[in-house]
Amino acid sequence: MEPDRPRYVIDRPAYNLPDFDREFDKKSRQFLVGEKVKKLFRCSVPRLRGLLSRHLPVLSWLPKYKAKDNLLCDVISGVSAGTIQVPQGMAFALLANLPPVNGLYSSFFPLIPYFFMGTAHQMVPGTFAVLSIMVGIVCVRLAPETDFGHFNDTLNATVVDTARMNDVRMGISGTLACLTAIIQIGLGFMQFGFVAIYLSESFIRGFMTAAGLQILISVLKYIFGIKVPPYSGPLAVVYTLVDIIRGLPDTNIASLVFALVSGVILIVVKELSARYHHRLPFPIPMEIIIVVVATAISGPLNLPKIYNMDIVGEIPLGFPAPILPSVSQWEVMLSTAFSLAVVGYVINLAMGRTLAAKHGYDVDPNQEMLALGCSNFLGSFFMIHVICCALSVTLAVDSAGGTSQFASLCVMLVVMVTMLALGAYLKPLPKSVLGALIAVNLKNTLLQLSDPYFLWKKSKLDCSVWVVSFLATFFLSLPYGVAIGVGFSILVVIFKTQFRNGSTMVQIMETNIYKNPKVYSKGISTTGVKIVNYCSPLYFANAEIFRQRVIKKTGLDPGKLILARRKFLEKEQREKVKEEKKDKETRRRKPSSLVIMKAQTISQLELQNDFDMNDGSANKPEPPTSYVNFYYGDTGLGEQVPGQEPPSPPAVKLEFQPVPFHTLILDLAGVCFIDLMGIKVLIKMNLSYTKLGIRLYLANVQAQVYEELEAGGAFEDGNISRSNLFPSVHDAILFAQHTSGERPASLNVEGERQELAFNINEKDLEQEMF
Amino acid sequence: MEPDRPRYVIDRPAYNLPDFDREFDKKSRQFLVGEKVKKLFRCSVPRLRGLLSRHLPVLSWLPKYKAKDNLLCDVISGVSAGTIQVPQGMAFALLANLPPVNGLYSSFFPLIPYFFMGTAHQMVPGTFAVLSIMVGIVCVRLAPETDFGHFNDTLNATVVDTARMNDVRMGISGTLACLTAIIQIGLGFMQFGFVAIYLSESFIRGFMTAAGLQILISVLKYIFGIKVPPYSGPLAVVYTLVDIIRGLPDTNIASLVFALVSGVILIVVKELSARYHHRLPFPIPMEIIIVVVATAISGPLNLPKIYNMDIVGEIPLGFPAPILPSVSQWEVMLSTAFSLAVVGYVINLAMGRTLAAKHGYDVDPNQEMLALGCSNFLGSFFMIHVICCALSVTLAVDSAGGTSQFASLCVMLVVMVTMLALGAYLKPLPKSVLGALIAVNLKNTLLQLSDPYFLWKKSKLDCSVWVVSFLATFFLSLPYGVAIGVGFSILVVIFKTQFRNGSTMVQIMETNIYKNPKVYSKGISTTGVKIVNYCSPLYFANAEIFRQRVIKKTGLDPGKLILARRKFLEKEQREKVKEEKKDKETRRRKPSSLVIMKAQTISQLELQNDFDMNDGSANKPEPPTSYVNFYYGDTGLGEQVPGQEPPSPPAVKLEFQPVPFHTLILDLAGVCFIDLMGIKVLIKMNLSYTKLGIRLYLANVQAQVYEELEAGGAFEDGNISRSNLFPSVHDAILFAQHTSGERPASLNVEGERQELAFNINEKDLEQEMF
Repeated sequence: MEPDRPRYVIDRPAYNLPDFDREFDKKSRQFLVGEKVKKLFRCSVPRLRGLLSRHLPVLSWLPKYKAKDNLLCDVISGVSAGTIQVPQGMAFALLANLPPVNGLYSSFFPLIPYFFMGTAHQMVPGTFAVLSIMVGIVCVRLAPETDFGHFNDTLNATVVDTARMNDVRMGISGTLACLTAIIQIGLGFMQFGFVAIYLSESFIRGFMTAAGLQILISVLKYIFGIKVPPYSGPLAVVYTLVDIIRGLPDTNIASLVFALVSGVILIVVKELSARYHHRLPFPIPMEIIIVVVATAISGPLNLPKIYNMDIVGEIPLGFPAPILPSVSQWEVMLSTAFSLAVVGYVINLAMGRTLAAKHGYDVDPNQEMLALGCSNFLGSFFMIHVICCALSVTLAVDSAGGTSQFASLCVMLVVMVTMLALGAYLKPLPKSVLGALIAVNLKNTLLQLSDPYFLWKKSKLDCSVWVVSFLATFFLSLPYGVAIGVGFSILVVIFKTQFRNGSTMVQIMETNIYKNPKVYSKGISTTGVKIVNYCSPLYFANAEIFRQRVIKKTGLDPGKLILARRKFLEKEQREKVKEEKKDKETRRRKPSSLVIMKAQTISQLELQNDFDMNDGSANKPEPPTSYVNFYYGDTGLGEQVPGQEPPSPPAVKLEFQPVPFHTLILDLAGVCFIDLMGIKVLIKMNLSYTKLGIRLYLANVQAQVYEELEAGGAFEDGNISRSNLFPSVHDAILFAQHTSGERPASLNVEGERQELAFNINEKDLEQEMF
Repeated sequence: MEPDRPRYVIDRPAYNLPDFDREFDKKSRQFLVGEKVKKLFRCSVPRLRGLLSRHLPVLSWLPKYKAKDNLLCDVISGVSAGTIQVPQGMAFALLANLPPVNGLYSSFFPLIPYFFMGTAHQMVPGTFAVLSIMVGIVCVRLAPETDFGHFNDTLNATVVDTARMNDVRMGISGTLACLTAIIQIGLGFMQFGFVAIYLSESFIRGFMTAAGLQILISVLKYIFGIKVPPYSGPLAVVYTLVDIIRGLPDTNIASLVFALVSGVILIVVKELSARYHHRLPFPIPMEIIIVVVATAISGPLNLPKIYNMDIVGEIPLGFPAPILPSVSQWEVMLSTAFSLAVVGYVINLAMGRTLAAKHGYDVDPNQEMLALGCSNFLGSFFMIHVICCALSVTLAVDSAGGTSQFASLCVMLVVMVTMLALGAYLKPLPKSVLGALIAVNLKNTLLQLSDPYFLWKKSKLDCSVWVVSFLATFFLSLPYGVAIGVGFSILVVIFKTQFRNGSTMVQIMETNIYKNPKVYSKGISTTGVKIVNYCSPLYFANAEIFRQRVIKKTGLDPGKLILARRKFLEKEQREKVKEEKKDKETRRRKPSSLVIMKAQTISQLELQNDFDMNDGSANKPEPPTSYVNFYYGDTGLGEQVPGQEPPSPPAVKLEFQPVPFHTLILDLAGVCFIDLMGIKVLIKMNLSYTKLGIRLYLANVQAQVYEELEAGGAFEDGNISRSNLFPSVHDAILFAQHTSGERPASLNVEGERQELAFNINEKDLEQEMF
């Protein structure tokens, strides 16, 4: 061996847990719930100040703000990002089936509360395509186009009152935003920021990819300039796709040309600026350039009229009048609002954490939830649709060197200028250009379609979460996708704990390391000792599986063996009684101290089959064949009255030939928590092994699991003895070998007594059930 | 120390995992999915025979049946149990808002398939109160009384056409049973028997107790003889209770007397026979005796007419004509059917397992699901309501010594005789007697109301599951209760993994045992090494929590420290450049090999605050105060072009004063599984600690976790090195001490390079997000 390697030399007494705790002064730790509660509700000036600066982070960062160093950067980055936000906001409003001006409102009002309350400095709240399309579904469902049609005699056709429809839909959008905001604020105040973690990465990526595909499909109609009736509910995306394909012959060529040209330019510029991004002081606001150019071409040349193109239309200037949400609609919106609240928050938090990691600050998850909720709440009175973080805008701010919320203030300014003045000029902008902007931004999302390929190699279960989330989201709808995806990813966690294999372990050569003999060939098994490890929490979903595993790995079912033994004893006794009666006459003169010794070998398999009428099934694993010797030493006892204790119970010795063991060591290192059902199974196992004279040792019990065992009553009288717990498998082995000789007959007496107790307990069968 | 204790003596080289695997011949195990699939679809005669005997257990047990030994027992137990089944079936039909004859059908038809397919020998399928009341809710909702009322001019009142209503409700009941059956058969064929384990014991007991209370409340109207309008949906039970209390003045005294007398007699006899149960050859069929006596008193004396008592009424004799389910109703029934399918199955399985454990056979969960499904399926054509195991009937069979399904055949016979002949005589039986029978049977269920008291002491979380399940079931309704209870008990599992505390560990004296220094006072910490253990799976819901824990326990946030260092370096360099430019003239003649050495002490806290504008919040834990020394040794390098590698990077040394460590050991013994997000966090941590020159060692990695790490790419280039894995914490410590001197400067060079890589990677911020 290499001389360089350190040596592992230990010479100490072996410990069981009580010895160890005594020798090394285990302290008892107390957790005072009362104290904690008191602390929680204590009121003091520093606490109040803390609360204030927690909920209004602006009070912390504003006084420290170094205007000289950072203000210029913030303004430049904010303004350039604002020029991205304006066209994107309008485009996403189309996804939400709302007029483009709604996108401007959504990019303006929510930024005010976030300025004061946000903890991520570079973050710009704003429209997000996935949320927009979820809002769009609700708008179409609650205010379908058909509701606003009236028959126009002059045209001899049904005309839709678009203005009124847009007003109603804006109201619906505001109402939905208000409900979402209330959910977010509620969760934030209840410190439920942690709900975000139930959304696993695999789920989010699957969900986002499906949403991206849905977005792509829903902008196709703008790009091709086709009229497609809106669908909602499951399979809506399929119907829409079919309609679009059917409608392709009616493509509006002018729309398509506008879309293709602006799309191609955008892609090229994006690729170039990505390549040379470190040479640019700030990202090129290509979106606004395209919008301006497209408007400048389409308007003066009167193209929309000539080619019958779908355009943005009149954008009402000025601030909107605030409205109140119509609370009566909340009931039907609840599930969507919940999905929006959670998904929006998760996206926001993920972006915030990425920024925080890059710039070295912390985001407070609960405060982010509150900030987002308040942003949506204020916005809801101005008919915004639900917002979270505006992805590309935030990235633009960050890459242009923005350092604080002043950047988002500048974004607000740009949007406000558009709202108050410039908006009027955007009337002839073709919707197909906005569609192209959306489609190009989907690039990264659609690249994730290759995720399953990589995930499959890394983890089959994570891959299945992705696929389930994707399919549910794509084919059913986005809120369903959230519910199914989250549910499935949590179920997968439960699955994982169920499909853990316990394995037997043996000592590796002369070390104190124990491993699976199927993996390491140089193992030496200790005579009379079985070691089984199990690597999973022990709780309701796998307690029974765990018991079965141990039975399978040890090749011995203690329950059946006890029954078999009892049956054997009963039979023997019956025969004994018969014999005795027969011999009574002949024996009367002989001394009664005569001991009759019998030895009978019974296959455990046969015994089990006696009880197991359901054998022969091909799918069941072969029962383990371990043979049991019953040495029945009868000291000639008289007839027993049932329920009365025998004066001296028969001394029964068991010897197991191919799988002989007197000690079963469970390595519980991998059991990270245990619940009452797990504890119950351990107690039951301890009871039945004890009846058979087998000692059950627990090794490597984690500190927290020990506390749970204690609280759950595992160490109470008659259950597991504390001295059967060991700090390591090797300690347990040493104890097992040390005491293997002295297996007392009294154990069997004890077993016999408990067996009688078992008989008496039978009437509790109904309570036993669970 | 006691001389008796074995000694723990080990002298071996220390290993890291690759050394260990090499030395002891680790085998690579391959799991061939293809083989398994092939095996699954292989077709052969023994396999077919196995399938047959698996799905028709009767083929296994019938040929082995020892008629001589067991037939008499079976017949006696079956007949006595049948006399319990008849009144109970009729009573439970009342709970289901169906005519009493439905209870007879439900106790007859389902037994036929179970005879052939059931794997629990003593089990008698039949009506179960909780299921009956769930069926009752559906019947009332889909066929409310008001639908069958017509105004009768003669009586000047609305009269309900009870016969037609009962017919319709029987149809609904059959339809519901059919849907439930299909769900059960489907789950059984998909081998989804394991869904049962998602129902934790705490949930089931809470659910059953709430259901018991609901049953009690719904039989009160029969006992008091009050008319109460049926309610359904959330809070129905509260409305019903209010109506009953309001209706108390109208109590029908005769009904109440019948109920009280029969109830008291039943309780007394039950208590007596429980006490002397081992003296009775079979349980006294008190239920049928009470029914017969009550009928005999009520009928000839014409009491129902005189006192206007609610009676059982005409029971149609003979077999019912089979009907087809009305599939169109399935949509509204789906959630209830699913609850019925799962709850019924769980009760059945729990009973089956209890019997199996008592008598030493196995029940096959999937086959039980199939058997139950087929029982319901056949029954559904004869308008039964959904059944599972008939609790008290099964217990009666078992305690009377029944050994096989022949007992349930005898139950069938008794029911059939009632259906074909005796039923006619039961017409004058007051419904209040049946109500009393139900109420008395609820005794054990209602005793469970004390569960929370015991659970609270043992496990707060299990207690909360009970309470949530109870409240949801009681106040909302039974299907809601199932959904909420199951959801909550699964969430509790997730909670548990989130609230695990990692803890630091130290060596206990001279042993190889490492424990939390807060618990054991005799610990000695190893210089320069931190050990943190974490006792929970590492997956999406707690990966981030785990990272935070490690940062908190070690008092060092590597991400922030790296940023601080980079900022410091940049500042230094800028000043250097300035200085150099200034000194250029004066230095021109001097040799450029002059080395300028600077030492500067910066508090990490200050550095962190630079990035953390959000400090000062009272609720946040104080950032750890660990001071960092930067020894900046500049060899006078020229101006660096960004992106170009410096010819000789500055040698930066870090020394941590109060919390000095060069190695971080993560004890992963308690990590029982890891998913891709967990792996990602480990890889990221390894990267950032490596940058700081800290080694990250993983100890005690479970075999299955090792496989998951490998598949997830944790050991790929640039990630975690396999040689940083150790079979035990002590091995890792030995290696850490051994190599602590030789921390190479090259590590820092490497760090510097990776830092540059980090800069280049910035454009991937969007992909970084998740």
